[in-house]
Parts: sequence; structure tokens; C-alpha cells
Amino acid sequence: MFALQKPHRTRILAAILFVFALLSARAQSDPLPSWNNTAPRQTIINFVQRVTRHGSPDFVPADQRIATFDNDGTLWVEKPLPVQLVFLIDRVHQLAPKHPAWKTTQPFKGVLEGDARAVAATGEKGVMQLMGATHTGMTVDEFQKIVSDWIATAQHPRFKRTYTQCVYQPMLELLAYLRANGFKTYIVSGGGIEFMRPWTERVYGVPPEQVVGSSAKTKFEIVNGQPVLMRLPELNFIDDKDGKPVGINQYIGRRPIAAFGNSDGDQQMLEYTAAGPGPRLALLVHHTDAVREYAYDRQDKLARLDKALDEAHAKGWIVVDMKNDWKTIFPPQH
Amino acid sequence: MFALQKPHRTRILAAILFVFALLSARAQSDPLPSWNNTAPRQTIINFVQRVTRHGSPDFVPADQRIATFDNDGTLWVEKPLPVQLVFLIDRVHQLAPKHPAWKTTQPFKGVLEGDARAVAATGEKGVMQLMGATHTGMTVDEFQKIVSDWIATAQHPRFKRTYTQCVYQPMLELLAYLRANGFKTYIVSGGGIEFMRPWTERVYGVPPEQVVGSSAKTKFEIVNGQPVLMRLPELNFIDDKDGKPVGINQYIGRRPIAAFGNSDGDQQMLEYTAAGPGPRLALLVHHTDAVREYAYDRQDKLARLDKALDEAHAKGWIVVDMKNDWKTIFPPQH
Repeated sequence: MFALQKPHRTRILAAILFVFALLSARAQSDPLPSWNNTAPRQTIINFVQRVTRHGSPDFVPADQRIATFDNDGTLWVEKPLPVQLVFLIDRVHQLAPKHPAWKTTQPFKGVLEGDARAVAATGEKGVMQLMGATHTGMTVDEFQKIVSDWIATAQHPRFKRTYTQCVYQPMLELLAYLRANGFKTYIVSGGGIEFMRPWTERVYGVPPEQVVGSSAKTKFEIVNGQPVLMRLPELNFIDDKDGKPVGINQYIGRRPIAAFGNSDGDQQMLEYTAAGPGPRLALLVHHTDAVREYAYDRQDKLARLDKALDEAHAKGWIVVDMKNDWKTIFPPQH
Repeated sequence: MFALQKPHRTRILAAILFVFALLSARAQSDPLPSWNNTAPRQTIINFVQRVTRHGSPDFVPADQRIATFDNDGTLWVEKPLPVQLVFLIDRVHQLAPKHPAWKTTQPFKGVLEGDARAVAATGEKGVMQLMGATHTGMTVDEFQKIVSDWIATAQHPRFKRTYTQCVYQPMLELLAYLRANGFKTYIVSGGGIEFMRPWTERVYGVPPEQVVGSSAKTKFEIVNGQPVLMRLPELNFIDDKDGKPVGINQYIGRRPIAAFGNSDGDQQMLEYTAAGPGPRLALLVHHTDAVREYAYDRQDKLARLDKALDEAHAKGWIVVDMKNDWKTIFPPQH
């Protein structure tokens, strides 16, 4: 049996421990391990270092480090359909037995038969009918319970994992990295605010009060002696396009210094953010990876990235090329 | 000349230092020094201890420790007129030279002549005209500058100090005490959200994103190549009465566990807060001190405290008797 002399063994053990310590230190020091070391990663880290270094001319006090993130297509998957639309379709099927007339009435008939063209033909009025029937008429607490139950089990048709596992690992790291550097991270989404709030804290580390989104009107009522908020079939606010800077001002009351999006719906949020004084970060996620996720941009109907892409190139905003800039797409499944 | 022996001197010095240390420790350990040791102070401290003690059956995780405060009459003076109304009147006088027609047109004529009855006769429409003319038609940034300039110098007619010095010292201590115990403190006021945001962080330690209030609609526009938010002469939201729970849900997305008000406009906020599960704190400031501040309640026209006072007595909400429960009203002048 081969045996090293004791002094040798000790020295080798020390060397091994040293190498492990080095590797571990390196892993700890890389805040964005799922990002390739390409321009986007470097620009992000450079920006964060500039605004957080005391005495730097670009230093930004912590309370002004506001970062806003679009949700659909920026933090989680939005193909083949936006997740909230899948939820809406599931709800129509669930509720249909109680509404026999839906079998013969648009837009419900179209949803039940999977006839997208028939639904589209009902236009904005049809959308409002579908939203009203599936998203309102209950208390805020009841709706949050419905969302929580659905999101716990509904699976993505291609990736065979729940939707909250179809979030982008590089963006989770970015959220955490910004927060570790004193940023307050917000979601500013065209999606429904009460559709996101039940799970954003667990999934993104973003608490309900840092979620901005589209909303229905609510009404304070006393029901059986209990004060509740009823969700009304009436639009309150659309947090998309021009609405995003409006929503940001309404909810946050400060201009962000960093904003992240992926479609023309985020263009005004990025313009508003980038136009403030001092250092600014504006970033678009460009879906270029049909193999690991999806590839879509200028021709897409629901999430077009066209004018914002031109503006990004013209103004030097960061454009993440998903295929080349991200090492991994989704978090490890658990 | 009388002189102590050196050992005596040392001992006396030590004793004096010891007494000072004791006094100082006591001062530090009293989080609410401007509150008399009456029931309200005891109930508040007891509540905070219950919800923050780990292992207590009443323990509330820090992220759920949401406390909401009305502003006018709860955190600062609202007599002889609500501060924002004084601002509005000052703005009408300032702008009048540019609007010669105001001299002969209501409600402006009434404001310029101090004829409250004539203004009141123009009703809601008149109020909207006055708000439109004085609070809108500029960018959000421009309006915040106007407010900041005004609030820096405008003085209270009786107390001869700026309005931001006419805040209640006991409530400043309460805000700080709650925050020191992990609470997130919010303002939920019927007043204008953009009228408060420019100064609430400096005065109350409440940042812009934790201010909920009434608002005008805004519109995203590109002006001279710069993206700005224009304030429109159109009402967006009234954050009063039934609107307070609605505003709380819209902005915060969680039910507070503590709420503080002083009038019937706060009744629904207190009901909504008190009705949640677990320990709850609901408090009304009752203005009973005509000598040091003002005395008003059931008969007041602008800030009536009537139904909410009855409900407070019926449900055991805390009612602060300003005269008996507060040692001091305003902070030391600086």
C-alpha cells in the first residue's frame, strides 16, 4: 500500500483546501454566473459599480436606486401564450358548466372551442367580457386564492414545469445582484397586478407593494359584517406602453435609474428611465433562442419588439442576445 | 475656599456621571417621550411588543408589519384650513395677474375676495376648476418644484412657523418607533399625492413610494425631445373614506396591521385594518386641545369626527385625547 509521509500528506491537504477556497471565492465573487462574459454582463456590472462607489461622480444614494422590470418575456416565459391568457382560458373552461349560454355565445364559445379567430373578432369588448367573467366578481382575497391555486399546478406545455419555474435564471441573478447593491427592485408589467402579487415575493423576491400592473376597479363593501374589497368588471388602469411611465410615477413617485424590458410595450418606460440625469441603464431582452426558449421580435403579434429595438441600437441601450449572452435560461428544477 | 479632598471629588464625579448615564439610558429606552403614560401609549407599546416577539402567538413577520397614517389632522395641523387649501388659495393669488377674467368669474373671484360662501356655491365643479387651474397643466417635476418652494416658506397664521414644523411630535416618535420595530410606515391621505411626496421623506421619514393619496391623471409626452409626465385637469383617484382601503390595496397590496387617523374620512381604513386576523391596532387622534392646538370633532365641516368616534368606542379602538395624552404637540423649532 502506497502511503505518503505525514508532512507530505498535510501539505497536499492544505493545497487542496486552498484550491477549493479559491474556487469558492471565485463563485461568490461572480454575481451573475448564468451570464456569459459578453458586453451586457460587463455593462451591467460597470453601471452598478459606478452608482454604488462612494465619492464617484456617478454615485447615486441608495434610496434613489430604483430598478423596474417588465414581467412577461423579461422575467418569465410569454410563449406560446402569455401566462395570464392561459389562466383566463382555464378559468373559462372551469366556469363553463355554470354558464350553459357560453356554449353558444362569443367570445366564450370561441375560447371553449379553441377558435382564436372568433375570439379576436369580438375585439376589445370581447376581451373585457372575458376579463370580467374570469377575473372579477369576487373579493381581492378570493381572487388571490384562485391565482395561487392555479399557479401552483399549471404546467408549461413545452417545458413541462410550472410557470413559476419558467422564469429566467439570469434575470433572477440580476434582481438579487441589484438588491445586494442597495437597489429597490420593482415589477412594472402590463399584466394584472393581482395576478402577480400572490407569487412575486416567493419567486422573484419582489414584495406585493413593489408590483405595478394593470388593474380592475375595486369597491369597499361590508359583507356579512366583514369589510372586503370587491373586484368590479371595470377597468382601472392599463400599465402598458405610455401607461408604464404613468404607473411608475403613480406608484413609485421617482424616476428609475435602471429599467428592463423585452418589447415595444416597454419602450416608453425605457425612454423615461434613460432620460433622467446621471448614469442610467436601459436593457432589452431579445428572444433569439428558438432551441432553448423562443425566437421572436419584429413580426410578433402579442409581444412585438420593433421600434424599441431600433431605439435601443440608436441610443446604445443594452440588447441581450438570449442565445449568446445567457449560459442558462431556466433555474434548476426542484 | 471650600475644597473636597481628592478621593471625595472623584467619588462625587463618578456618582454624577452615573446619574447622567441612568437618565440617558432611560431617555433612550423610552421610545415615546412626548406621550404621557396613559392608556394609548401603553396599548401601542404592548401591541408592538406582541407582534415583534419571536415565538409569541401574536408574532407578525416583518414584511407584513404595514402601518398606514392619515396625514391632515393625524400627522400635521389641518386648522384653520387644510394646508393644501392654503396652497391652492396662494396659487390663485399668484396666478391671477395672468388671468384677468378671474376677477369677475367664480370660483376664482370668490377665492381672490376671500368669499368662502361664493366659492362653496360653485360646488364640486368649482373645486375641480380650482384644482385644474392651480395643480395641473405642468409636468410632475415642475409641480413638485412649485410645492417644494411654497412649503419651504409658507407660515401657519397662528403658530408662526412653517407647516412642516406644525407636525405632531408624538406622531413623529410613533413613526420612528414603528420603523425601529420593522414596520413599513405609509401615508394614506385624502390630500394630493404629489403635494406630499416632495417633503414627506425629510419631515416624516416616509419616502415617495410609501405615500398614497388623491391624484390627477398624468400623460406621458415627449416635449422638446424630453420624455415628461404632464398633469392633466382630470381626476384620477380620490383617496378618502371608501377610497382609502381601495388605495391601500392598489398601492400596497396587503392589509395593514395598524392604522392611524383622526376623522370620519379614516373610518373605512380603520375598519379594514382592524378586521384582519391576528393582533390589530386602530387609533384615532381626537383634537381636544384648543389651548395648545385646536378642539374639534362632531360638528366640524371639513374634518368631522363623529361616526368613527362612535365606532372607536364600540370596538375599543384607541382614542388619543390630545390634551391629556400628549406632553408636547409640535417639535422644538429650529
